[in-house]
Amino acid sequence: MERKVLITECADAQGLITKITGVCFSHQLNIIKNSEFVDNVQGRFFMRAELEGEFNDSLILTDLEAVLPDSSRIKLVNTDKKRIVILVTKEAHCLGDILMKAYYGGLDVEIAAIVGNYQNLQPLADKFDIPFHFISHEGCTRVEHEKKIVEVIKEYEPDYLVLAKFMRILTPEFVEQFPNRIINIHHSFLPAFIGASPYRQAWERGVKIIGATAHFVNNCLDEGPIIKQDVIPVDHSYSAEDLAKNGRDVEKSVLSKALQLVVHEEVIVYGNKTVVF
Amino acid sequence: MERKVLITECADAQGLITKITGVCFSHQLNIIKNSEFVDNVQGRFFMRAELEGEFNDSLILTDLEAVLPDSSRIKLVNTDKKRIVILVTKEAHCLGDILMKAYYGGLDVEIAAIVGNYQNLQPLADKFDIPFHFISHEGCTRVEHEKKIVEVIKEYEPDYLVLAKFMRILTPEFVEQFPNRIINIHHSFLPAFIGASPYRQAWERGVKIIGATAHFVNNCLDEGPIIKQDVIPVDHSYSAEDLAKNGRDVEKSVLSKALQLVVHEEVIVYGNKTVVF
Amino acid sequence: MERKVLITECADAQGLITKITGVCFSHQLNIIKNSEFVDNVQGRFFMRAELEGEFNDSLILTDLEAVLPDSSRIKLVNTDKKRIVILVTKEAHCLGDILMKAYYGGLDVEIAAIVGNYQNLQPLADKFDIPFHFISHEGCTRVEHEKKIVEVIKEYEPDYLVLAKFMRILTPEFVEQFPNRIINIHHSFLPAFIGASPYRQAWERGVKIIGATAHFVNNCLDEGPIIKQDVIPVDHSYSAEDLAKNGRDVEKSVLSKALQLVVHEEVIVYGNKTVVF
Amino acid sequence: MERKVLITECADAQGLITKITGVCFSHQLNIIKNSEFVDNVQGRFFMRAELEGEFNDSLILTDLEAVLPDSSRIKLVNTDKKRIVILVTKEAHCLGDILMKAYYGGLDVEIAAIVGNYQNLQPLADKFDIPFHFISHEGCTRVEHEKKIVEVIKEYEPDYLVLAKFMRILTPEFVEQFPNRIINIHHSFLPAFIGASPYRQAWERGVKIIGATAHFVNNCLDEGPIIKQDVIPVDHSYSAEDLAKNGRDVEKSVLSKALQLVVHEEVIVYGNKTVVF
Repeated sequence: MERKVLITECADAQGLITKITGVCFSHQLNIIKNSEFVDNVQGRFFMRAELEGEFNDSLILTDLEAVLPDSSRIKLVNTDKKRIVILVTKEAHCLGDILMKAYYGGLDVEIAAIVGNYQNLQPLADKFDIPFHFISHEGCTRVEHEKKIVEVIKEYEPDYLVLAKFMRILTPEFVEQFPNRIINIHHSFLPAFIGASPYRQAWERGVKIIGATAHFVNNCLDEGPIIKQDVIPVDHSYSAEDLAKNGRDVEKSVLSKALQLVVHEEVIVYGNKTVVF
Repeated sequence: MERKVLITECADAQGLITKITGVCFSHQLNIIKNSEFVDNVQGRFFMRAELEGEFNDSLILTDLEAVLPDSSRIKLVNTDKKRIVILVTKEAHCLGDILMKAYYGGLDVEIAAIVGNYQNLQPLADKFDIPFHFISHEGCTRVEHEKKIVEVIKEYEPDYLVLAKFMRILTPEFVEQFPNRIINIHHSFLPAFIGASPYRQAWERGVKIIGATAHFVNNCLDEGPIIKQDVIPVDHSYSAEDLAKNGRDVEKSVLSKALQLVVHEEVIVYGNKTVVF
Repeated sequence: MERKVLITECADAQGLITKITGVCFSHQLNIIKNSEFVDNVQGRFFMRAELEGEFNDSLILTDLEAVLPDSSRIKLVNTDKKRIVILVTKEAHCLGDILMKAYYGGLDVEIAAIVGNYQNLQPLADKFDIPFHFISHEGCTRVEHEKKIVEVIKEYEPDYLVLAKFMRILTPEFVEQFPNRIINIHHSFLPAFIGASPYRQAWERGVKIIGATAHFVNNCLDEGPIIKQDVIPVDHSYSAEDLAKNGRDVEKSVLSKALQLVVHEEVIVYGNKTVVF
Repeated sequence: MERKVLITECADAQGLITKITGVCFSHQLNIIKNSEFVDNVQGRFFMRAELEGEFNDSLILTDLEAVLPDSSRIKLVNTDKKRIVILVTKEAHCLGDILMKAYYGGLDVEIAAIVGNYQNLQPLADKFDIPFHFISHEGCTRVEHEKKIVEVIKEYEPDYLVLAKFMRILTPEFVEQFPNRIINIHHSFLPAFIGASPYRQAWERGVKIIGATAHFVNNCLDEGPIIKQDVIPVDHSYSAEDLAKNGRDVEKSVLSKALQLVVHEEVIVYGNKTVVF
């Protein structure tokens, strides 16, 4: 008995659930968990089903295509661990949380490699025997830097790239190579405090709550589809440094949770938003 | 076009979603929103569907019974406002929140009457022209007191009773007359601080968070199925009175939200728990 | 025995707490509660003391001035209820919460009057016998409209103006007449979604958390000093209308809490921020 | 210039702040941060001051004793890193979080050693070059087991013991040797679900929120003074295992925060409660 996840997205219509679950039933697949969502504004239907049984993938897909509207997006994927490459700069907390969870439970990923534009996190990677590639951004253009990174990444054939406090802005050329496959943690409650030094911005504004946002990266800075957000209360006594210090636990927890949702196939991107089942 | 909610609960089996949605489809009912849950431990299947279309209730139910396992529980209900009777003692905040939301939006209920064992909330009821019945518990036994209350309640034929800080313990005889139809707010994060003076208990224990719990009432004090809970942070500087004062916003918000979930048919009771869709 | 609150703000220096509490001690005032804060960036000292005893205000102030740096701001205020005038448009929930708490506990204010640019909340004001002034914005310029409002407000000599979902932008001329005395509730987690239709903006952005912000009004739209913020989780299934509906409980709770902090003299404005003791 | 923390606890009286800060002032110590609390029920005064300057400890203490009531508790401590020994059983997440924060920032502790009653966390300790002592509880009585543990602990002369998911109940004899120096994380929102398998208990009760509690250990199981608590929302779809999985992030974050509060001397134990400044 295998387990797979079936994701369907199509124009809304009557009878979709009957038709899709009917195909599953005809293949004697058991539905472990099922979730649907209809966006009434755009008339789109979304469904995620966790299935158990013996899978004849191509036959199932053919049967589904036969009953669904044209230009439906259907995805039948296994629930194996996903391969990720992590990009970091200097901060250890998000990387450390992913390492701990990948090794001791909580995150169904295989960390293929870590790429850093500083060298200081090499020892942390070494502790867990993960290849660490130090690729400095100094002495080269942004395009050259990214070219070197992409070369390394492609060798590892990752399913997803995780920006675990990678503090470089990526060019559209880079991003386009990994559509909806780059997950970033931004250290603010987006769309508040886009861009550099969000904690300093938050301190200057005198907010009473700070947050973190995990999102897919697209070509607009900090504007990609949001996967997960969380916040903590703060007060006037926090300096900008205190905000940063206290924000770390939220950052790492939001990034890890978002990543787990993505690798579990619980996130569907559509337009600039996500459906998170 | 009408809207109804279909609730199904039965032994788990393959093909249930196909069968149920198939019946809906055959009646040309559109599924606006659908939720399922399987309790794998007990092998129970739960489904809630919001339907739109022309309803032939008895035919739909017959068709559903034909495809579902024996002893399934099927409920097809309209989404009209539910009638409630509110029981209160002295505190105004929960009652006030329900009144405001019933009159200005946020709670799809019709308040048939208010019953109080003190008289001090009569003026609040009067402001909204709701019949207020003052039924003192003094000079009569618990059984006699409840008998008087039941007499008044029954006249109004309410769908639900709401205990909006009604500080009397109800006898099993009372509770049995309204199975899964009495909603209480307990001013603690159950199962912590069952019984009297939970804020004082919380203060004595020195907790750093307090909460409130809305639950259906059964025959064990504060042990009925939980519908909704919420909490707020507190610290050493709060006296027991401060805890009570600060807890009021949580109490009223939790009770109102639980009530709205119940009247929207989003809550299924099974055993001593709830499925909240 | 009386109770008063002493607020001190001055340039930071050694010995300030000793000097200030020394004056209190010499006047045989008991310190019930004391809070201090030093802004190290700007070198400012803030202190709030709740005092109990017999007060010779002018003597105490003279004694304090004698020991404190030049241009210190010293305020010795009683803890009587504050008078407020509430401005509303069409939505009832914030107004209702303030009314309930003013009448049944939780908010130490006396509501002098309500001003509405629509008439629909008149009946709610009537229930509580509060004068309601309907001042339509139609058929007059913004300046004329505000002039009429100011005339009404001034009659009541309020300590604070509360914008309980008053959906009009105030001119600098209006705001200047009530410096740090106008409290607004903005239905977003500022500085996200400044301006009109924040819930629609939030829906379009696909955020996973929404919030509300209570702040003093200054001359930049939604940019005044923040007093209090809170948030609730949401997901893809919420329409813009659902966001608005679910946001109401947060809005009213944040506004009422901010107002209570202000009337309790727990909020000190400095620059564009607040110290909230 | 040094930094120290002054903690004072004594019977409440007029003029205490003046007297204490007066002594600080006379020693030319700058008060960086100051917090006071009066428990009006028991008439106890608590104060914590962060001081900067040149310290003549014994003279300062003598001066303080001279002005304070008899039997005051006065503590003047430096802000160096505290030494801890961590006790674990099988779960890695709390240990991992402490290790990461001790090495990469967020926790001002020096981890002297780790003691485990299973061997599986040895490799994690090795990664960070921390001595790991495997002391099995098998084949020996509880008293014998603890004796072995105490022997190891005492060698390291730790300031605090941290039970990072150490799943053994400690005897009074053990606890008495480290009064208010053992910090435990309990995986429930105490006082709910005391004792074994709190997540299973939570699942059986059908709660809608779960939590974690960090507390000092005393001789009543899970009844020691609470330092920090936090919660997360859950729903009917969570199995007991899901609750445990999702609770881990809260457990580790609560334990680390509590530990940091303790090592920063921000926690005062009195009776069965804590003042957390």
